[in-house]
Amino acid sequence: MSFTEIIGILAGACTTLGFVPQVIRVFLLKSAREISLPFTLSFLVGVILWLIYGILVDLVPVIFWNAASAFLGTLLLYAKLKYG
Amino acid sequence: MSFTEIIGILAGACTTLGFVPQVIRVFLLKSAREISLPFTLSFLVGVILWLIYGILVDLVPVIFWNAASAFLGTLLLYAKLKYG
Repeated sequence: MSFTEIIGILAGACTTLGFVPQVIRVFLLKSAREISLPFTLSFLVGVILWLIYGILVDLVPVIFWNAASAFLGTLLLYAKLKYG
Repeated sequence: MSFTEIIGILAGACTTLGFVPQVIRVFLLKSAREISLPFTLSFLVGVILWLIYGILVDLVPVIFWNAASAFLGTLLLYAKLKYG
């Protein structure tokens, strides 16, 4: 693994893993009143576009972390629609 | 500008611009009680690492949007430390 890839892995760990407690919290509380629907949708579309960008340029950390973020964003959207 | 770069520009617009209303809100309310300090720090370190990654691989959309996110993250950290 190159130095550049290690930077990318650490970068994604910082920006993506911060969302995990947020998503868990919404499911534990069964409440997503404070979660903004436009923000959630914009975030989900954005990370799917970053995922496509990563695939087009062939960037392993970008593909990996945006796939993880798309999964988290989908869970958050599900929670928002279910618990509102 | 290539198709890939357009995807990257749209991707960053979705993931970064969503934070603008959040940062403005904290400054308007002069209150950042609900903003998590660990999340803010992790986000700021993460986007700075993505910025370094973008410079190392020479990816214009990654450099541009993570520079913008680092600016927003710095403002949010300032607001958190000032208004806590």
